[in-house]
Amino acid sequence: MSYYPSSVLNLIKNFSRLPGIGGKTAERFALHILRVPRKEAEELSRSILELKEKVRFCSVCFSLSDTDVCRICSDPSRATDLLCVVEQPADMVAIERSGSFKGRYHVLSGALSPMDGVGPHDIRIRELLARIKEGSIKEVILATGTNVEGEGTASYLAEQLENYPVKVTRIASGVPIGGDLKYVDQITLKRAMETRHDV
Amino acid sequence: MSYYPSSVLNLIKNFSRLPGIGGKTAERFALHILRVPRKEAEELSRSILELKEKVRFCSVCFSLSDTDVCRICSDPSRATDLLCVVEQPADMVAIERSGSFKGRYHVLSGALSPMDGVGPHDIRIRELLARIKEGSIKEVILATGTNVEGEGTASYLAEQLENYPVKVTRIASGVPIGGDLKYVDQITLKRAMETRHDV
Repeated sequence: MSYYPSSVLNLIKNFSRLPGIGGKTAERFALHILRVPRKEAEELSRSILELKEKVRFCSVCFSLSDTDVCRICSDPSRATDLLCVVEQPADMVAIERSGSFKGRYHVLSGALSPMDGVGPHDIRIRELLARIKEGSIKEVILATGTNVEGEGTASYLAEQLENYPVKVTRIASGVPIGGDLKYVDQITLKRAMETRHDV
Repeated sequence: MSYYPSSVLNLIKNFSRLPGIGGKTAERFALHILRVPRKEAEELSRSILELKEKVRFCSVCFSLSDTDVCRICSDPSRATDLLCVVEQPADMVAIERSGSFKGRYHVLSGALSPMDGVGPHDIRIRELLARIKEGSIKEVILATGTNVEGEGTASYLAEQLENYPVKVTRIASGVPIGGDLKYVDQITLKRAMETRHDV
């Protein structure tokens, strides 16, 4: 790598810190930046800083926002009695893209993971319970992941919410739409069998 | 995509201009930048600008350099009578990594491509001939690519250099080391046969 000028090497090093990017791809990115108009490079550089400066957590749901309260929390057309609990802002975006939900969200910013030392006080469970105590929420949909941590978090929350006058539901797990049964893993099939429903 | 705050969307858009990066990966990069310490994001941002500010072409060989004359051109331990002609700075870096060459380079900044309107005046052929006229170069190694444009450029240069008192050579083409003959394409095998040498 020491054959490039130091400013090229420096950018290669910084690009290779991006997730999934190795030395070869980082080198390609740096050479690309060399070729593009100065304006385009400046835009990329500035938008990185802007992201760090502007983006904060919504003070209500803890999703990403440029403003104190995010667009969804301040949208009067969305149901206030339906709360969907997710692990990360990206999960919220995935549900929004599906267009299947018109209520509000609560972003936990993680999942319980005793192995990694993440306990109930490390994710936004206290804030979730505070929102539920306010009284307008009638149903809490647990949309944490379907891996061990996500399932564990959902179980923990379900237990905590037993003391509150809310209906608690969990997003369904099963065979993905368009999926071929023979390619679906055993645990998913087992779950799909167990949670089968009338047609 | 419109579910993220605008500063996140903006960074996703800018990241997706990098070569081979689609919307999903750009989104992953932007969410990564959100998570990393502010200092790391600033470093990436700054190194993009620094690259555009500092890197120029070496005034002798036209490779990338932070200084007027690059490290290789100003290295007195390298042979001055051996000149390797490549298309791009990255080709020079590849040869340097192989450790197989201890002379000087000349970067053409492209290859002849009549289809794309790239003629002899669009790449640094005039500068190459000027360097050869100076008289210290004894051998010119044509290390342009082995695709149509690279081969065409090598042929054109070989013809131009007939009038100069220099030996002109071309890097060998053939079966890659560690390559299995049955996976090598026909044209490469044909070339390997034609340019076979005594052992």
